[in-house]
Amino acid sequence: MVAFEPKNPDYRAAAMAMFAAQPAMHTLGISIVHLAPGEVELAMLHSAAFTQQNGFVHAGIITAGLDNACGVAAFTLMPREADILTVEFKTTLLAPARGARFVFRAEVVKPGRTLTFCEATAFAEHEGKTTLIASMTGTLMAMLPRAAAPQAPAAIRA
Amino acid sequence: MVAFEPKNPDYRAAAMAMFAAQPAMHTLGISIVHLAPGEVELAMLHSAAFTQQNGFVHAGIITAGLDNACGVAAFTLMPREADILTVEFKTTLLAPARGARFVFRAEVVKPGRTLTFCEATAFAEHEGKTTLIASMTGTLMAMLPRAAAPQAPAAIRA
Amino acid sequence: MVAFEPKNPDYRAAAMAMFAAQPAMHTLGISIVHLAPGEVELAMLHSAAFTQQNGFVHAGIITAGLDNACGVAAFTLMPREADILTVEFKTTLLAPARGARFVFRAEVVKPGRTLTFCEATAFAEHEGKTTLIASMTGTLMAMLPRAAAPQAPAAIRA
Amino acid sequence: MVAFEPKNPDYRAAAMAMFAAQPAMHTLGISIVHLAPGEVELAMLHSAAFTQQNGFVHAGIITAGLDNACGVAAFTLMPREADILTVEFKTTLLAPARGARFVFRAEVVKPGRTLTFCEATAFAEHEGKTTLIASMTGTLMAMLPRAAAPQAPAAIRA
Repeated sequence: MVAFEPKNPDYRAAAMAMFAAQPAMHTLGISIVHLAPGEVELAMLHSAAFTQQNGFVHAGIITAGLDNACGVAAFTLMPREADILTVEFKTTLLAPARGARFVFRAEVVKPGRTLTFCEATAFAEHEGKTTLIASMTGTLMAMLPRAAAPQAPAAIRA
Repeated sequence: MVAFEPKNPDYRAAAMAMFAAQPAMHTLGISIVHLAPGEVELAMLHSAAFTQQNGFVHAGIITAGLDNACGVAAFTLMPREADILTVEFKTTLLAPARGARFVFRAEVVKPGRTLTFCEATAFAEHEGKTTLIASMTGTLMAMLPRAAAPQAPAAIRA
Repeated sequence: MVAFEPKNPDYRAAAMAMFAAQPAMHTLGISIVHLAPGEVELAMLHSAAFTQQNGFVHAGIITAGLDNACGVAAFTLMPREADILTVEFKTTLLAPARGARFVFRAEVVKPGRTLTFCEATAFAEHEGKTTLIASMTGTLMAMLPRAAAPQAPAAIRA
Repeated sequence: MVAFEPKNPDYRAAAMAMFAAQPAMHTLGISIVHLAPGEVELAMLHSAAFTQQNGFVHAGIITAGLDNACGVAAFTLMPREADILTVEFKTTLLAPARGARFVFRAEVVKPGRTLTFCEATAFAEHEGKTTLIASMTGTLMAMLPRAAAPQAPAAIRA
């Protein structure tokens, strides 16, 4: 885990405001429990309303938590004027999402002017035990109002 | 698109029962609008409760629809006694999830005794126009109570 | 399949030159057999040198063909001055890569100024039969020497 | 990183034999430099024959190394009679594959009777500096000649 230097000195307030502006996070009962440059931890209490046919939390809901963790982690390293969107992610479901509480941890693997790559893991807390239940790798994009385009570096790759 | 022969003659009732048993689908307002062996279409009306900071439906909710479409499509081709779980999926977000109604279409690419591979697409209906907003490729697994293990075919690959 | 309008009128020559400049394609024996705006087909003869322990072509070599098909397909829609790089891809291995000849087909799902999304499929030709053996979804990026940055659209999504 | 207990006491010899039986690894110049239960490190010297148009190693070749690292790592935890195949993987390309030597490290995230989940990273050694250039998450499958099928656990998830 590398220490990252945020470009936006108000990254913390900006990330919390972006998170708070998402009705979906409120509806799902997801909140921020840790925030630092390039890393974030979210938590969610179990809700029967979001389960599937076996009583576990639906994979899409777990993905919502993982994706949002990646988005907030990436956003902490973006400039003040940037908006953020998710390009793609892959979720791997390692164990049933059974538990009273769920935690989503994301960290930036590589920040970039245009694209930021993140990894996230989801854990379930069930009967005093914490279990890794899912992982995500995702690509996030900064949308800048007016700035130079991505420059071709001296060496690029197709 | 290949025509598939379901192993379970009651695949239709079984798939609908599995879907109906998921509280998350009810909470998200997702319903089945088309069902055939190896293919399914789900629909969801827009709900402000599941949006992100720009007013679009959250990527995790879109993923829930795509994943469930894959799950039901795969389930239609599984034997009667099988349960199903999602192994992994990748979601690509192609356009903002803006619209009054969303449609999730999935089809089985390759069914298998243990693993079934699916593809799905999500569309937004907005002001009379239908737009492709996301795609998914996913791996689903059949859980069988008692049966022969996957046999090594004559030719396998690492 | 949408018809795409290339920005570079010399897209054909540009794509063929970019392909020809890749020693890896020559070493693997991969060549272009079809090229149109936003779509490409590559072919490769079987070579024992690139097989794994069961005599099938290695998944990484199949991925090289799929990735290159995506790269060329995306490149046909980019402006003249763009360089291209692969951001990420997912490969799903549907059947053993057994055959005398392999075909890699890619098409652009959504082109963009910065990011282009592609899908590709790999087929094996074996004893007169053609089999789908793998699929890919990938994200490609245009690197532009000097141009406006990605503009935040009126509506974006995190 | 969890310590894993191999089911096959001869896992080391078995994994090395499986690796040695792959002509593609020999052709690409990839060798095993570290091997332990559930983890492996491979290395490859730069070869101009496997580069793309900018002189970097082709993404498909990097993927071949990552996939093989995952395969060997997963194989170390499988029973003696198992064969292994790759189900799917996602590769994220973080930096150009420029360097004199490349290293591929994989570890098992979760082993299973049927499916094993791995993560891998690729590094380039260039002018005395080691750079993370790519990452992979992948799903591997054990093919067993004769055994019980995957049992539905008490709780499963779709």
